[in-house]
Amino acid sequence: MKAARLHEHSKPLVIEEIPDPEVTGPFDVIVRTGAAGLCRTDLHIQDGWFDEAQKAAGMSLPYTPGHENAGWVESVGEGVTHVQPGDTVILHPVTTCGLCYACRAGNDMHCDSGLFTGIFADGGFAQKIKTGARTVVKLDPSLHPASVAALADAGLTAYHAVKKAVPLLHPGTKVVVVGAGGLGHIGIQCLSAMTPAEIIVVDVNDDALELAKVVGADQTVKADDGKIAAVRDLTDGRGGDVVIDFVGERGVEEWGPQMVRKGGSYFVVGYGGILQVPFQHVILEEINFIGNLVGSYNDLVELMTLTAQGKVTLHTKTYPLDAINDAIDDLVNGRLQGRGILVPNES
Amino acid sequence: MKAARLHEHSKPLVIEEIPDPEVTGPFDVIVRTGAAGLCRTDLHIQDGWFDEAQKAAGMSLPYTPGHENAGWVESVGEGVTHVQPGDTVILHPVTTCGLCYACRAGNDMHCDSGLFTGIFADGGFAQKIKTGARTVVKLDPSLHPASVAALADAGLTAYHAVKKAVPLLHPGTKVVVVGAGGLGHIGIQCLSAMTPAEIIVVDVNDDALELAKVVGADQTVKADDGKIAAVRDLTDGRGGDVVIDFVGERGVEEWGPQMVRKGGSYFVVGYGGILQVPFQHVILEEINFIGNLVGSYNDLVELMTLTAQGKVTLHTKTYPLDAINDAIDDLVNGRLQGRGILVPNES
Amino acid sequence: MKAARLHEHSKPLVIEEIPDPEVTGPFDVIVRTGAAGLCRTDLHIQDGWFDEAQKAAGMSLPYTPGHENAGWVESVGEGVTHVQPGDTVILHPVTTCGLCYACRAGNDMHCDSGLFTGIFADGGFAQKIKTGARTVVKLDPSLHPASVAALADAGLTAYHAVKKAVPLLHPGTKVVVVGAGGLGHIGIQCLSAMTPAEIIVVDVNDDALELAKVVGADQTVKADDGKIAAVRDLTDGRGGDVVIDFVGERGVEEWGPQMVRKGGSYFVVGYGGILQVPFQHVILEEINFIGNLVGSYNDLVELMTLTAQGKVTLHTKTYPLDAINDAIDDLVNGRLQGRGILVPNES
Amino acid sequence: MKAARLHEHSKPLVIEEIPDPEVTGPFDVIVRTGAAGLCRTDLHIQDGWFDEAQKAAGMSLPYTPGHENAGWVESVGEGVTHVQPGDTVILHPVTTCGLCYACRAGNDMHCDSGLFTGIFADGGFAQKIKTGARTVVKLDPSLHPASVAALADAGLTAYHAVKKAVPLLHPGTKVVVVGAGGLGHIGIQCLSAMTPAEIIVVDVNDDALELAKVVGADQTVKADDGKIAAVRDLTDGRGGDVVIDFVGERGVEEWGPQMVRKGGSYFVVGYGGILQVPFQHVILEEINFIGNLVGSYNDLVELMTLTAQGKVTLHTKTYPLDAINDAIDDLVNGRLQGRGILVPNES
Repeated sequence: MKAARLHEHSKPLVIEEIPDPEVTGPFDVIVRTGAAGLCRTDLHIQDGWFDEAQKAAGMSLPYTPGHENAGWVESVGEGVTHVQPGDTVILHPVTTCGLCYACRAGNDMHCDSGLFTGIFADGGFAQKIKTGARTVVKLDPSLHPASVAALADAGLTAYHAVKKAVPLLHPGTKVVVVGAGGLGHIGIQCLSAMTPAEIIVVDVNDDALELAKVVGADQTVKADDGKIAAVRDLTDGRGGDVVIDFVGERGVEEWGPQMVRKGGSYFVVGYGGILQVPFQHVILEEINFIGNLVGSYNDLVELMTLTAQGKVTLHTKTYPLDAINDAIDDLVNGRLQGRGILVPNES
Repeated sequence: MKAARLHEHSKPLVIEEIPDPEVTGPFDVIVRTGAAGLCRTDLHIQDGWFDEAQKAAGMSLPYTPGHENAGWVESVGEGVTHVQPGDTVILHPVTTCGLCYACRAGNDMHCDSGLFTGIFADGGFAQKIKTGARTVVKLDPSLHPASVAALADAGLTAYHAVKKAVPLLHPGTKVVVVGAGGLGHIGIQCLSAMTPAEIIVVDVNDDALELAKVVGADQTVKADDGKIAAVRDLTDGRGGDVVIDFVGERGVEEWGPQMVRKGGSYFVVGYGGILQVPFQHVILEEINFIGNLVGSYNDLVELMTLTAQGKVTLHTKTYPLDAINDAIDDLVNGRLQGRGILVPNES
Repeated sequence: MKAARLHEHSKPLVIEEIPDPEVTGPFDVIVRTGAAGLCRTDLHIQDGWFDEAQKAAGMSLPYTPGHENAGWVESVGEGVTHVQPGDTVILHPVTTCGLCYACRAGNDMHCDSGLFTGIFADGGFAQKIKTGARTVVKLDPSLHPASVAALADAGLTAYHAVKKAVPLLHPGTKVVVVGAGGLGHIGIQCLSAMTPAEIIVVDVNDDALELAKVVGADQTVKADDGKIAAVRDLTDGRGGDVVIDFVGERGVEEWGPQMVRKGGSYFVVGYGGILQVPFQHVILEEINFIGNLVGSYNDLVELMTLTAQGKVTLHTKTYPLDAINDAIDDLVNGRLQGRGILVPNES
Repeated sequence: MKAARLHEHSKPLVIEEIPDPEVTGPFDVIVRTGAAGLCRTDLHIQDGWFDEAQKAAGMSLPYTPGHENAGWVESVGEGVTHVQPGDTVILHPVTTCGLCYACRAGNDMHCDSGLFTGIFADGGFAQKIKTGARTVVKLDPSLHPASVAALADAGLTAYHAVKKAVPLLHPGTKVVVVGAGGLGHIGIQCLSAMTPAEIIVVDVNDDALELAKVVGADQTVKADDGKIAAVRDLTDGRGGDVVIDFVGERGVEEWGPQMVRKGGSYFVVGYGGILQVPFQHVILEEINFIGNLVGSYNDLVELMTLTAQGKVTLHTKTYPLDAINDAIDDLVNGRLQGRGILVPNES
């Protein structure tokens, strides 16, 4: 099969022929790749940010990135009965054991032996992917993988954060969303579908704010010098009951936490910056900082339901596998409107 | 009446005669002070740390500190029917409105117009205190105020943090308590009474660790160079499901957060230091930092129940009001075993 | 002032002049009645269903019913500072103490000494009402009391049940609403605003089902012989994750509980029937039956927010106070479309 | 191997030689039976109560009962890596798929395709049991299966109910336990270990009440004519915040629900009777009836932790497999002190 593989850090991926993956264990599933989302994390992988962790996990170059995958089941191990060849599926990005306390509590993203696809195992920038029975979510056959693949990680993470915020967001509360990009614009849709909270979106980019309004923002705030005052004005001088930070760097780590009200919670989703806050402030304001990793398998099932109901939709641009380095180039240079999606079995 | 008042920052309190407080509004309650706890915050008040905030609130020197108060009701306003003269009471440290959303949701410590006694209103270092109907918790008449006064703030804060941690502490979990001093040794007793979690206590002080064992610690760890490794050893290499930090300064702000496991929560109670942690760590570990202010009125009611049941006890040393500057001196110089308690109406 | 009073059970109310209520305590509030909703419970009051309970509470004929009230503040006691004469307000139906554990936990509807207005105290079928500081929710002055009064009890109860169901209703769940009448049609709007659940409405009345669709039902089911099978068909053969029963009598008590899925919950709101179910069924299906009284004060605040946001609207018909017996007659004989609202100060 | 099998309803079990079970699928686990608890449900199975359900599930006579099993792993399928031959294990009574929404949410007892061992699959009244990888909980090798087997179902159910009640049981609350027998005496220990609530135990049997005191009851009440009044006296006239009914028949279904306070919850664990209560009462008291099935796999893990910590212990009497009909006879005739345990590989 054809795959786009990383042979050397900071170099383009190499399109090459490699052997097809095969079922070797009872719970293996081979999926023909319908679509694979391209993510900023892929850039970091390419640049070697995860090199040390990968080596520790026994992963070495060359290998195939791609962690936002959907497609059609091609073959299954003898122990697999819940999907069969031909089924349309989306893949949770983490392969999990199903047996540890975390897996059995519904927190499979904390699996004691979980492996993130495309970082610690070959991913979806190839015509086929080998995965496990526990990652596949069956989809309506009428759905094309390209329309949902990016929900497997970016969407899932946004959904997961919003779901954790739901109990805090009763009528009359206000949620501040910082960043209306790839994750943020899904998060806004989830908030709109799942809570009665007033949604205030903050972004530096006017186009992003425009999109935010279309997908559910009640108020938008340009992230210029007046942003904190503007958010205070929109929240009776208090700040948001919940702030969800989809950026986590480029200064947001400093001003974002100032937008949370007394007794409120700051959800950390984006990263890159450093959280710096006096313990005294954490206590006197009684605020919380809540970490958010990718969601659970059931979170992905629920997000697929929202998608099927038309409550969450994605903006995407597709590329054939051969064009992956162009796609990467578009992403790096800000020429990519919406999410870039590879379609390895189309040309 | 006699009161110990602050006339000048960084100077001893002045023992002097001032007029008795009087009922002027329908919900006023005058309490004869049975006992008033002495707290490190009183040192900070004396040193002027709250000067700016006090001025903003219209509070000026001289005034009477003391925010951990218990005593006997002396007189009440016409609208007060739930306590009457002679009742033994402990006082919640915050006077609250009872009408804002926070008050009506049971979060009275977040009252829109709450005032902290002894900082923004005259406190308990006097023979009488003027408070409001909403602060008083009725106690068994056989109880002496001196045995519980320190629970009004120190104990209440520890209880509040533990109560918020209860849902995270099922059988098999491990909680790390950093600091077994005034608040910590109450927190350990609350954890022991309210959860089945294994309790691991970390402190620099051997006597504190000894006390920790007596009041409920399952394991103790000396806070020396091997502390993080020791906690890992006691938690299957993972860290605590919950870490409660009763120190929050002197280096704990750096090593404390390293003791929390993936998916776990760090409860901030002590303060002074600065929380510094990369967003990437918050996300990849999916950890939470949870702020903890003083508890609610009902928290105080519940803590009084634990005390009445013998599940929480305090170590104290009492001083007459005239000796308050000696008590402060003992506290500053580490000569105070347990909590210092003023008994303004005894000599 | 003019009031409609009950002098004898099972007889029409008497329109008569009685003295104006007056402020006598520091927390009293006198409200000029803008609107008072007419409720089936008023029929039961008229028929003497509550006679025994009223006598036990020291309430005797004649008195003034009316428990869904809104209007304008006319005068206040000396301890009242959060509203002032002229303010538009809606009244929570229960006067509460604000000091018991339930009140301080945000469950004021369980107040140890709560009194339900219009049953245990004179109500709103009069030009003025005497209430307490803790019942009044301040409204936007542009709002006319007649457009919200019925939310004070009927709406509040529906909201309260829905709010308790929110944590059970993640994407992909299905909620069955039995009864799309006065409470049900508000409940559907709350569900639609606050959850992503699919809403299936069951009713005997075609017009009610039509209205249900307009206000947010995803599916409707006629309550005829095929109703249980129809609900099973719409829920993958399982039944609803949550069933909210706004009827509770006329046979619903028998077939309603059969519509709840394994592990699901049945919310009881309507009443009249008797719940009869083998313990074995409760266990093997692991289902819950959840009682629902009127909501808390904060629930009413939140419902007012949904109303202000246009997410909840009411259908009403207004009557002058003199026409109250006509209104009752219309209600008894099914001629009342929407909720009947008295406007005691208009003619 | 030797097995005790049911050939005909209402007849003694037949001890006979049958073929050893064998690994046939990748996730099969064969366990050498260390101990198998005898439960009243086994009497009902013998009497044919589950006949219809069994036939519907394709289960026909003869077969082997026994659903409370523990032992040592003998062999495993190729996909099993978390246990190996020789490991001491206790078996969750339900074999589950691990892939449905319920399994992945941590509610494996609601698995879409779960099968209860000893009812819908051959159980532990035999020298070996065939089970699946997902049922086995690894134990400390020093532990003998006979000391824990009865926790696999009876204990697990009691634990599960208590765990669900924990959030309702803060300091100051009172929990009424009805029935201090097999399940009840474990429930009391769990309550004592996991909550600060005051525990009031009601039973008809003086010996049971004595045992209740030993294992953690704060108060005991003889279930005679004064029982409801006695419980009211012990609860400030209110009833329990939580009532856990481990009986569910013989009249408890009538008086048990009268012991729950306004706003409280009645946990149904025992069965046989019929719940009968007016909807009006459910609403005006705002009470809940909470069904409780056997616990989840993680619940069993947690219960094993409590056992290892010495917080839960069982009273048992062991029988060799050949004496199973004697054991049944002892159980039927009330001669069995504690739980009867079969030890099929001992004589």
